Amino acid sequence: MKASYRLILDCPDRVGIVTCAAEFITRHNGWILEASHHSEEETNWFFSRIVVDANSLPFGIDKFRSEFTTIAKEFKMNWRIVDQSVPKRVALLVSRESHCLSDLLDRWRSRDIACEIPCVVSNHQDLRGLVEWYGIPFHHVPVTRENKPEAFDQIIEMIEGYRADTIVLARFMQILPASMCDRYPNRILNIHHSFLPSFIGARPYHQASARGVKLIGATCHYVTTNLDEGPIIDQDVIRVSHSDRVEDLVRLGKDVEKVVLARGLRDHLEDRVMVHRNKTIVFK
Amino acid sequence: MKASYRLILDCPDRVGIVTCAAEFITRHNGWILEASHHSEEETNWFFSRIVVDANSLPFGIDKFRSEFTTIAKEFKMNWRIVDQSVPKRVALLVSRESHCLSDLLDRWRSRDIACEIPCVVSNHQDLRGLVEWYGIPFHHVPVTRENKPEAFDQIIEMIEGYRADTIVLARFMQILPASMCDRYPNRILNIHHSFLPSFIGARPYHQASARGVKLIGATCHYVTTNLDEGPIIDQDVIRVSHSDRVEDLVRLGKDVEKVVLARGLRDHLEDRVMVHRNKTIVFK
Amino acid sequence: MKASYRLILDCPDRVGIVTCAAEFITRHNGWILEASHHSEEETNWFFSRIVVDANSLPFGIDKFRSEFTTIAKEFKMNWRIVDQSVPKRVALLVSRESHCLSDLLDRWRSRDIACEIPCVVSNHQDLRGLVEWYGIPFHHVPVTRENKPEAFDQIIEMIEGYRADTIVLARFMQILPASMCDRYPNRILNIHHSFLPSFIGARPYHQASARGVKLIGATCHYVTTNLDEGPIIDQDVIRVSHSDRVEDLVRLGKDVEKVVLARGLRDHLEDRVMVHRNKTIVFK
Amino acid sequence: MKASYRLILDCPDRVGIVTCAAEFITRHNGWILEASHHSEEETNWFFSRIVVDANSLPFGIDKFRSEFTTIAKEFKMNWRIVDQSVPKRVALLVSRESHCLSDLLDRWRSRDIACEIPCVVSNHQDLRGLVEWYGIPFHHVPVTRENKPEAFDQIIEMIEGYRADTIVLARFMQILPASMCDRYPNRILNIHHSFLPSFIGARPYHQASARGVKLIGATCHYVTTNLDEGPIIDQDVIRVSHSDRVEDLVRLGKDVEKVVLARGLRDHLEDRVMVHRNKTIVFK
Repeated sequence: MKASYRLILDCPDRVGIVTCAAEFITRHNGWILEASHHSEEETNWFFSRIVVDANSLPFGIDKFRSEFTTIAKEFKMNWRIVDQSVPKRVALLVSRESHCLSDLLDRWRSRDIACEIPCVVSNHQDLRGLVEWYGIPFHHVPVTRENKPEAFDQIIEMIEGYRADTIVLARFMQILPASMCDRYPNRILNIHHSFLPSFIGARPYHQASARGVKLIGATCHYVTTNLDEGPIIDQDVIRVSHSDRVEDLVRLGKDVEKVVLARGLRDHLEDRVMVHRNKTIVFK
Repeated sequence: MKASYRLILDCPDRVGIVTCAAEFITRHNGWILEASHHSEEETNWFFSRIVVDANSLPFGIDKFRSEFTTIAKEFKMNWRIVDQSVPKRVALLVSRESHCLSDLLDRWRSRDIACEIPCVVSNHQDLRGLVEWYGIPFHHVPVTRENKPEAFDQIIEMIEGYRADTIVLARFMQILPASMCDRYPNRILNIHHSFLPSFIGARPYHQASARGVKLIGATCHYVTTNLDEGPIIDQDVIRVSHSDRVEDLVRLGKDVEKVVLARGLRDHLEDRVMVHRNKTIVFK
Repeated sequence: MKASYRLILDCPDRVGIVTCAAEFITRHNGWILEASHHSEEETNWFFSRIVVDANSLPFGIDKFRSEFTTIAKEFKMNWRIVDQSVPKRVALLVSRESHCLSDLLDRWRSRDIACEIPCVVSNHQDLRGLVEWYGIPFHHVPVTRENKPEAFDQIIEMIEGYRADTIVLARFMQILPASMCDRYPNRILNIHHSFLPSFIGARPYHQASARGVKLIGATCHYVTTNLDEGPIIDQDVIRVSHSDRVEDLVRLGKDVEKVVLARGLRDHLEDRVMVHRNKTIVFK
Repeated sequence: MKASYRLILDCPDRVGIVTCAAEFITRHNGWILEASHHSEEETNWFFSRIVVDANSLPFGIDKFRSEFTTIAKEFKMNWRIVDQSVPKRVALLVSRESHCLSDLLDRWRSRDIACEIPCVVSNHQDLRGLVEWYGIPFHHVPVTRENKPEAFDQIIEMIEGYRADTIVLARFMQILPASMCDRYPNRILNIHHSFLPSFIGARPYHQASARGVKLIGATCHYVTTNLDEGPIIDQDVIRVSHSDRVEDLVRLGKDVEKVVLARGLRDHLEDRVMVHRNKTIVFK
């Protein structure tokens, strides 16, 4: 992958946004590698992601940032410029189920997702050995009904200590305190084991079995204080039949969960996901 | 397709059900073309569908029925024997949207679904010409807030007059009175334009758009008095993105609706669907 | 859908293409509704599709065309500007199978695909009634081994007479003469009933059955003189099993064929498909 | 999972096969947990898989085997009876790519596939650590152009030494000698990284990219001496677009490869796959 900068912006829609942004880049001889735009009619809002070859520019990211500020102000943009060569730092939170963790670690080792994984935190010891085989620090933070606030304080401390910018709940099975959700807006990814908004809450495979659905699914979403109601990043489903019992749904669902979480995380890491109200724009 | 009889049965599970049924058939030199079984552990219930080559038997369906009664009683079976060569009679109820109707009529004409369609009933006139081109009687029964009971009495009268045994709501867009639902248990098929149980009720594509789901779906189910909560026969989904507006969802959803309805109807016509409590067993 | 112009262009890749095109539009106060770009690294080629709100511009399409020529020359563009409000004219060629035809006609009538269908041409009479019900002229041109050149001359004459710009082989089942393929480059769409490049040639479902594949598919592609080897626009598949005989594959395949053809045609009609060597860029 | 025996049989089709088999089981008070049958019309051949609760029988598997022999002879069956509680022994052969291996090991550890993995053999050292973390012996057998016969002799010796009954090529990337293919008929599973029969041979993702297909796939099949032409057990596909380069296809394809291999292996381990000529019957 070429060294590149990603310009991510959204603003009220009007004439000239693309032109101004593109003109700024071209004026500095910048080579645009990718450009995606979206206009939301209802809210008259504009979204854009432009990837520029870093080596084609005569300056670095700081100069880019300061120079672009004038345009950004003119159009009242929410914006950021991201250096693709600086990998995001992803803290993984897990419980005892290994399928998502194992899948992510293999993708990370194979460089199929570009990030650093500074630590894995778990409320159980089961997966320590696997994580440590990959050379990643593993921290055990038991979470009980009694110690929950302290436990999450400790987890947040670790996240801060490791300077993680992204948190992935890889089947963590614990409800985060609202304060933690609010602290990391659009930075905590969860994989919910149902096709949301179906089967919100506990034991979704049991609910799916009871309702007799013919497809089960999984949903990767950003965590907000409204449990299972955060903005959806990706979803997928798999066919099941009357002969699949709850334990079969659990097993079959794992394949969807791990693939959807990995896809959602990859989009997040590549700054392809923008959040607007409670929905996402995902530039593929 | 060979002339055949379909033996459909369910009963409390115990040793010897398959053997007794198979032995009965073999004793009369019957050739088993297909056999599917399912045991539901939770409820200890057994389900079976056995297809026998009609020409391999020394007797007709009436004799089969009377002879088999002893076994059926012994095992306390709910059962029926169906002559595949007698097509089911399907009344179609439609409103103004043509995609499901047009699709079903083409399948019927091409003999991809085996049934008779004695009539199409609609609360609008729009689709009369198309239906009549296929040589099928079309009846217009306007349904208003005021005349609803009378209108549905009239519809039921037509269904009875045409001796329809199956009713398909091919995007009928009217809520059936409870009395009609109760009158035709597991004989009225509906296509709901969402992946149930998500987005129950009105305007599911608007709901889907508001929630920002990444897949939309459709559900074919038997109609019960609990709106959108009947036993699910089949479902499917299609991928959508942030750039799809509600009208795009409506358009994209049509392809799922028509395919799922046709698949569900075909399974029903081939007596592959059995209902147990609020779930279906679908023998593929 | 808003009145709009579609600017479609490709050219050698270099700095400034997007900027120049966007700047031209902005300078005239044009509102960009959609913009998609693609760079092909191997061949260093750039592709773009930009949709502009026609009412936001101070001039019509002719002035746009003449004004833009300078930029187009500078970048050595292959390009065109298309008025979305002028529907393409699609001639349908069919044989006896109705599923694709019936599906396309229903979409056309429901305005789910935006085009005119000036005529349907068939080498059989079977589908005349259906076509005429939709109010579309139907022409019967028998094709035999002996009259093939004359028959196709007659077909081309009709296409020209009706000023069709797009030709859709909706299961036409006849190999076009090379001269006709060459005459309408990237303007003849075919639906092949296999997942190309598998099962090129005759009776693909028989081939699929013989090989024992677990999925069957269909491919929508532009017709070239190399049978079944033209640029692929869209493909899809459906699951099958050992219990599906050839006639089941034929039936199941129809659902894929009609959906893939409709999707490919829609993309073509919206000028989303660009051809580069033997591959397509499809801007979604 | 209940202790059970699987009766797997195929024979010329005729009246009474199911009855005789079922009657034998019922006579001994055996409880049938699952029963699947298939008749292939063209070849007049019958296939069946019947699962019996082991604890419902008054005798063990040896007595079952000897008692059933009379029936088997009468119907000229190819047959076997398999004790579900005796796990198959699966030797994994890998090269350097970890995605299939890592996926299988995690499923094995989570008991989502029921087998023993007595050893992993590789022509590279890369994956030793991962394998050993799971407590499985890892053997490095370099394969070069010169030592190929000796290397495979050594591999076969290991397979025999570990009493493996199933061999999985989890992206092994080496062509097996014909003698090895012949030695283990329907016992060597390969995952081919294309939707066979498309793109047989080397570098299928490069071939797929060159042809411009819109879906890529993977195929799990039994290995025969005809490379990439063995009986297909399972296949699946994933959507790609013009913007995916070869390296993207490679990455995206991994998700299909690992899921399809795992599904095919699971079916094999549960004795759901029967081979007839060059096709499989897979009882789901």
